[in-house]
Amino acid sequence: MPEDYRFPPMRVGIGILGGGVVGGSLAHKLLNESDVITAKTGLELQLVKVAVRDLDKQRPFPASYATDRPEEVVDDPEVGLIVELMGGMEPARSLVLRALDAGKPVVTANKQLVAAEGPTLFQRAEKNGVSLLFEAAVGGGIPIIRPLSESLAGERITSVMGIVNGTTNFILTHMAEEGRPYDEVLAEAQRLGYAEADPTADVSGADAAAKAAILAGLAFGVWVDLDRVYVEGIEGISSTDIAFAARLGYVVKLLGVAESTPDGVSVRVHPALVPDNHPLAAVRGAQNAVFVSGPALGELLFSGPGAGGDPTATAVLGDVVTAARELLAHTPVAPRVRIGAGIVADFGQVDTSHYLRLEVDDAPGVLAAIAGAFGEAGVSIRSVWQEGRGEDATLLLVTHAAPESAHAKAQQRLAEIDTVRQVASVIRVVGDTG
Amino acid sequence: MPEDYRFPPMRVGIGILGGGVVGGSLAHKLLNESDVITAKTGLELQLVKVAVRDLDKQRPFPASYATDRPEEVVDDPEVGLIVELMGGMEPARSLVLRALDAGKPVVTANKQLVAAEGPTLFQRAEKNGVSLLFEAAVGGGIPIIRPLSESLAGERITSVMGIVNGTTNFILTHMAEEGRPYDEVLAEAQRLGYAEADPTADVSGADAAAKAAILAGLAFGVWVDLDRVYVEGIEGISSTDIAFAARLGYVVKLLGVAESTPDGVSVRVHPALVPDNHPLAAVRGAQNAVFVSGPALGELLFSGPGAGGDPTATAVLGDVVTAARELLAHTPVAPRVRIGAGIVADFGQVDTSHYLRLEVDDAPGVLAAIAGAFGEAGVSIRSVWQEGRGEDATLLLVTHAAPESAHAKAQQRLAEIDTVRQVASVIRVVGDTG
Repeated sequence: MPEDYRFPPMRVGIGILGGGVVGGSLAHKLLNESDVITAKTGLELQLVKVAVRDLDKQRPFPASYATDRPEEVVDDPEVGLIVELMGGMEPARSLVLRALDAGKPVVTANKQLVAAEGPTLFQRAEKNGVSLLFEAAVGGGIPIIRPLSESLAGERITSVMGIVNGTTNFILTHMAEEGRPYDEVLAEAQRLGYAEADPTADVSGADAAAKAAILAGLAFGVWVDLDRVYVEGIEGISSTDIAFAARLGYVVKLLGVAESTPDGVSVRVHPALVPDNHPLAAVRGAQNAVFVSGPALGELLFSGPGAGGDPTATAVLGDVVTAARELLAHTPVAPRVRIGAGIVADFGQVDTSHYLRLEVDDAPGVLAAIAGAFGEAGVSIRSVWQEGRGEDATLLLVTHAAPESAHAKAQQRLAEIDTVRQVASVIRVVGDTG
Repeated sequence: MPEDYRFPPMRVGIGILGGGVVGGSLAHKLLNESDVITAKTGLELQLVKVAVRDLDKQRPFPASYATDRPEEVVDDPEVGLIVELMGGMEPARSLVLRALDAGKPVVTANKQLVAAEGPTLFQRAEKNGVSLLFEAAVGGGIPIIRPLSESLAGERITSVMGIVNGTTNFILTHMAEEGRPYDEVLAEAQRLGYAEADPTADVSGADAAAKAAILAGLAFGVWVDLDRVYVEGIEGISSTDIAFAARLGYVVKLLGVAESTPDGVSVRVHPALVPDNHPLAAVRGAQNAVFVSGPALGELLFSGPGAGGDPTATAVLGDVVTAARELLAHTPVAPRVRIGAGIVADFGQVDTSHYLRLEVDDAPGVLAAIAGAFGEAGVSIRSVWQEGRGEDATLLLVTHAAPESAHAKAQQRLAEIDTVRQVASVIRVVGDTG
């Protein structure tokens, strides 16, 4: 143990709501690594109680800590700080507000709750003079919330973009590297624990949407309603498109994008073709990576483990240390997040470029008709590849950037062309410098 | 401007010590971007005075703010917070202590001062109940200090490693990509402003050593004296070795390493061969990148602009915002850095692997003699390449990991072999997984 010039450690009682993977890992750390934590921070973080759903289940902490009544954890006078790891809206929301009203700081990893109710929670925390921290809500073990809300407070951030869902990145990586279809890889991800039995929240993009909305809130000070976030999942991504993308020099990734545009803040989640020499293309498996861009900084990259019990518990523990220090300092906590009303850009006005795969008749004039459709819609074509000959030809097109509304118009016109049998797929392209 | 539910902005007067590139950029931001800062933070950061060396020089802020008496800035009753950007030990050290004793929080980008006097400064800040922050001292615009000291407080960090000097990375990148010699690229870096007229601090590794020592202090809670840091610069790196390294699949980088070993904390700076598929190999020009490793997190990567007025000023401004909030909250500031006494590993005990270039006689038995020298020293050879034939043969060797003391012994034995004309170069190898 290092010698120390400070006063003896200060004690804070910790109550955890949720005894799942992250809650179990956190409880285990608090019980078994208290010496490291005390040596590094001067704090004695003492586990008091853990609210679990099922008292009979085996867990990585003694059963004597478990209770199935979460209110009991919040109200326990020995508990000075609440860690909420239940997820979902209720009863998490009510319990968090109850803790804040009791003057107990809250650390949460609940992205749905923070995305949907952020401003309400921040206001309540401020009113009660306690901390509300949520580093683990985005990017698992990667510190991104704190850098955005504190270190970069002086930067006029223009965009925050990245891979913020490990499950979909695991699936897309394996589809690409092994040439296997979506359903098969999803089933394997479920077997290995990388995807849940009901994978909807991940594969539909909903999880990434909540995270992107939180990033936008911190970067731009505008809390975007989840129903204003454009969301497209990976269910429609075929191994055919992944293979074609690879031949054109791209990798398919599910991206969360929060951007400041001349028309307002845009938040969106969708699969995207990313150039294979782009740093995001190298992010494999369940890893996450986030780019922050601004005029003074250029580009910052944060990457690391996006999920998992231990990394997430580490992020939670970092917040617990900060919240405990602020509690002990009796700080009327510094407002970290400042939220205003702002304009949310209409998705139709957002500029994107598209990759399209068209099934066409291989007849004279087809390309002219297609080019005409794009031209009338105001979308210019950047490149075209034809695959196969004979009756069944496949055309791959990549467009230049144009408003989403113009792309929609172009796709309507394409559907009206007789020799275009099918617009087989449309995927946005991100990160092209050409 | 977003609507807002908060009270009106709170004012803090800012005094800057040092009117160079970073100080000028910060003053410019405070004067011209106050609306963004206030909207995002609720703070009105008002520039009061800037201490400069030469009053007659043209600067990006009005001359009315400039003074050549730095004490005047520290003592000004309108100044509530001091930003120290002078660099070097004195008078920076005395001015920082004077500010802390006057109850004024200090933000500094001065890596020499923090590396050499960290514990003294932290203790003084704590005694006076004010903040001392230094995000810009390492990694320029990359938030790394705060994640290490706050977000990762709960992780048993095993190593922090990376490219922490932009000048040397610029030089090595250009040498590698253009096949040009060190002196020529250094001269170009000086012309372009990437290297100083006297480049010693950068090319000798001294700048990186101060940064690595700070990272070790935050990661392990042990402040390592600069004279216990092993330092080797890039002056001896030849384009020959860079070209040979490339043929073997490596890139040469100057690395700062802070590592927790069984024998204590090791801090070192030296050029290293990094495999060309390693993420650090892709860090080009003046960019910086830092890896943090630990059992729970695996690897976190932070990368971005490592230097430059605007990125550094942005990092400083993030600290100013935090320090101003803590000042206004009258917080007896939360101790962020906790320093103890610890064991510093002897460099001889540290395990490394080496690349060696030997000029040898191309005679029978040479390789056997060389292999014998390594074997007697307890170093095992991983691979050998021979380049050229005839009298002038070049042998390239890469060893497995062994203690530095064993490598030193092997090199002594090599020098005693008649057929080994010269040990032309020795560079460490980092990041090899084989």
